Amino acid sequence: MMFDNLLGEFLGTMVLIVFGAGVCACNTLTKSKGQNGGWICITAAWGFAVTLGVYTATTLGAPQGDLNPAVTLGKTLIGIYSVPQFFATSIAQILGGILGAAIVWLAYLPHWAETEDKSAKLGIFCTAPAIRNYPANFLCEFIATFFLMFVIWMIFSNKVGAMPAGLGPYIVGILIWALGMSLGGPTGYAMNPARDLGPRIAHAILPIAGKGGSDWAYAWIPVLAPLAGAFAAYVVAMALNVF
Amino acid sequence: MMFDNLLGEFLGTMVLIVFGAGVCACNTLTKSKGQNGGWICITAAWGFAVTLGVYTATTLGAPQGDLNPAVTLGKTLIGIYSVPQFFATSIAQILGGILGAAIVWLAYLPHWAETEDKSAKLGIFCTAPAIRNYPANFLCEFIATFFLMFVIWMIFSNKVGAMPAGLGPYIVGILIWALGMSLGGPTGYAMNPARDLGPRIAHAILPIAGKGGSDWAYAWIPVLAPLAGAFAAYVVAMALNVF
Amino acid sequence: MMFDNLLGEFLGTMVLIVFGAGVCACNTLTKSKGQNGGWICITAAWGFAVTLGVYTATTLGAPQGDLNPAVTLGKTLIGIYSVPQFFATSIAQILGGILGAAIVWLAYLPHWAETEDKSAKLGIFCTAPAIRNYPANFLCEFIATFFLMFVIWMIFSNKVGAMPAGLGPYIVGILIWALGMSLGGPTGYAMNPARDLGPRIAHAILPIAGKGGSDWAYAWIPVLAPLAGAFAAYVVAMALNVF
Amino acid sequence: MMFDNLLGEFLGTMVLIVFGAGVCACNTLTKSKGQNGGWICITAAWGFAVTLGVYTATTLGAPQGDLNPAVTLGKTLIGIYSVPQFFATSIAQILGGILGAAIVWLAYLPHWAETEDKSAKLGIFCTAPAIRNYPANFLCEFIATFFLMFVIWMIFSNKVGAMPAGLGPYIVGILIWALGMSLGGPTGYAMNPARDLGPRIAHAILPIAGKGGSDWAYAWIPVLAPLAGAFAAYVVAMALNVF
Repeated sequence: MMFDNLLGEFLGTMVLIVFGAGVCACNTLTKSKGQNGGWICITAAWGFAVTLGVYTATTLGAPQGDLNPAVTLGKTLIGIYSVPQFFATSIAQILGGILGAAIVWLAYLPHWAETEDKSAKLGIFCTAPAIRNYPANFLCEFIATFFLMFVIWMIFSNKVGAMPAGLGPYIVGILIWALGMSLGGPTGYAMNPARDLGPRIAHAILPIAGKGGSDWAYAWIPVLAPLAGAFAAYVVAMALNVF
Repeated sequence: MMFDNLLGEFLGTMVLIVFGAGVCACNTLTKSKGQNGGWICITAAWGFAVTLGVYTATTLGAPQGDLNPAVTLGKTLIGIYSVPQFFATSIAQILGGILGAAIVWLAYLPHWAETEDKSAKLGIFCTAPAIRNYPANFLCEFIATFFLMFVIWMIFSNKVGAMPAGLGPYIVGILIWALGMSLGGPTGYAMNPARDLGPRIAHAILPIAGKGGSDWAYAWIPVLAPLAGAFAAYVVAMALNVF
Repeated sequence: MMFDNLLGEFLGTMVLIVFGAGVCACNTLTKSKGQNGGWICITAAWGFAVTLGVYTATTLGAPQGDLNPAVTLGKTLIGIYSVPQFFATSIAQILGGILGAAIVWLAYLPHWAETEDKSAKLGIFCTAPAIRNYPANFLCEFIATFFLMFVIWMIFSNKVGAMPAGLGPYIVGILIWALGMSLGGPTGYAMNPARDLGPRIAHAILPIAGKGGSDWAYAWIPVLAPLAGAFAAYVVAMALNVF
Repeated sequence: MMFDNLLGEFLGTMVLIVFGAGVCACNTLTKSKGQNGGWICITAAWGFAVTLGVYTATTLGAPQGDLNPAVTLGKTLIGIYSVPQFFATSIAQILGGILGAAIVWLAYLPHWAETEDKSAKLGIFCTAPAIRNYPANFLCEFIATFFLMFVIWMIFSNKVGAMPAGLGPYIVGILIWALGMSLGGPTGYAMNPARDLGPRIAHAILPIAGKGGSDWAYAWIPVLAPLAGAFAAYVVAMALNVF
């Protein structure tokens, strides 16, 4: 069962990143038919990416369908995972992110050489702040992930009636879509260590035509701030007696 | 139970404003990655903001999930709330609006100083008319809130079969999305005293970089016109024998 | 029961036109906050307008929730309405369209004088062809309404399992949204005599600032072509043994 | 039953192409009211096109509602169809694509002569690569169709609970919408031999005003790559023990 869980989280996160990094490639790369599709495309596709990744993970035996170490941390705090399971699950998610990003690189193979802007190419893989200010960037990712985790608790609380099978992942996708439109402006809303770190590693490893650096100086923020935000959401939800 | 109701309306309205004021910040502030995302983003995110706020309120013990004194007024008129409960609930909603707006201010912290336009900054917090004409602005907010309240009665009438758990808040979000696209042009569709007054108070209080005045001359319209519109929707629904 | 049906169709169509003409006003009128929101807003809002109008009609006692004489014709052909009921229902729908258009005129009251373009103002009320060619315009409205009616038969065939209460009107809204995006280009997709004729009458009657003519030369196409298209869909569905 | 299946796939694919080729016409043709509606319109309408086509096919007696030889291939591999049924179903789907494209040509009849760009006109019917590079184009269509088929297995695995009636086709539409936004940039996401070949044949046959060639040199890629991608998804899903 633990193996199925890791497999589900690995391939679910792969699906998440294929759709998520995919829409960034589609919107950014030179000659893409979807170039400049706009913020509505980016945010909708990331939302649906989560929906589709959750179906994948749950079908393959990962009943939580977290796709995100910050969400897994929240569920570790309420006893769904042990601490070793938290680390194993997070690694599976990061590996899924690497694989998903590599697949997007392949799908857009001839477009990388056509695109001049190195930071635009990096932005397909991982997030970067609009205004580089580490405390403020940390705060923004902390707030966005707090609301990600807090509203997930709100949607799936067993105090509300059970949703029909299949509707839950769609509503979580709506949450992600909304988070992007609302809180995505300052940092590009990583809210997920695996979503940022996995593709950043892929960017560093893959022979992407005309790539620049992988901006490792920023990489700790989309890892630590989401974990901190999910922890804060746990504390608040605990104080509110949600569990 | 009354305390849970106030808590739910307080935090549900906080969630509403985090997403609602958030999308206005994302669309407006200089250097935001979602700048000029357009009317489709603004209206969709406000719709989902209501959906997500309703899940929050209902999970925390506010079974109505109003997030809006105008809606609470409608439900007071049919006997769900007492008059003192109406006032207490409205205050909880306004306080939630203040907190939500403060959180958006923090999430976008470095962007306020980068943005010149004082009225654009105010527009992230509260509504302003496209053409300042108080009787016409009152009429527009009256009509929009009439349809908000009237269609809510139509969606949730127990003459229609019960919706599946979880679908109801989504359909209300679609209603808000549609109201914004259709009737939002003249006044920015407050339709909710707490949504406008709470963040306006936050704008007045918070040390926002380079802020201007809070336009108190207009503040009464998005308070009184929605209450009047909800009252009219009650009268019409009563005449139509909906309850 | 017949009275309730007329009341429901009257007010359901009013809701349809408040949202539908509303989004056209929002997108077109000078100084509207939603000006140039684009085709995605227009088509999504018309889709949701139908969803919300159907909830209204069904709650008020019109179980079919047609909002459209072409749809009512289709249901007359399979025996749900008698011929006199068809005419009475169509008149109720047209009257609802007039009332809805008048409400939009009021909601946007100060914007009409600010807008120069007379045909843009007319376009908020009723449809006009992109290229004026009556046979081609008739054909386009015929095809669009054929697919409106044909796919409604497909969605609600009792050969498929019953949808959960509340989901059906949403899926019909998705159908309308898609029809607009796909077949709306040549004629603005009236597909509904009441949707076009009711607001056109309102345009002729109301004291709209700086209005032009109501283009009565074209008015017969969005009345007759949708009826013909719905009739053809009935014939095809009958031949396919759908009923 | 086999006849009903062919009829359902034929008319379901017709509906798919009416909406899908329709949105491309609406977005591209000169003087269309939806011209330059953008990538969000194109991808949303193709998603809904699949949703509506699936309702059509299932109502008319094709319980799988594939609309796509690549999907039918996947289901042949797990034993739902025999090999002769696979070929018969694929032909029905291609014929449906031809009919759907002819209907779009009629709906937009006066617009073809107004539009100069021959390749834009072809692009309404079938896909073309953004950068012509056959191995890369094959790889992109292979990857996109792999995820189409793989995620369909994930959504409808009987390891997950049954979805409410009516929701399944909507979620598949969301999958297609997301695929377009994410992986549609390099080749325009055919992912379906019938979707590409049927309308390409229609383009070759129909007397379209000012048309150019039908680009037969590229036509094999959107036929073979989707079949290969669906085969790969079957292999992976089999290895993952999904069936």
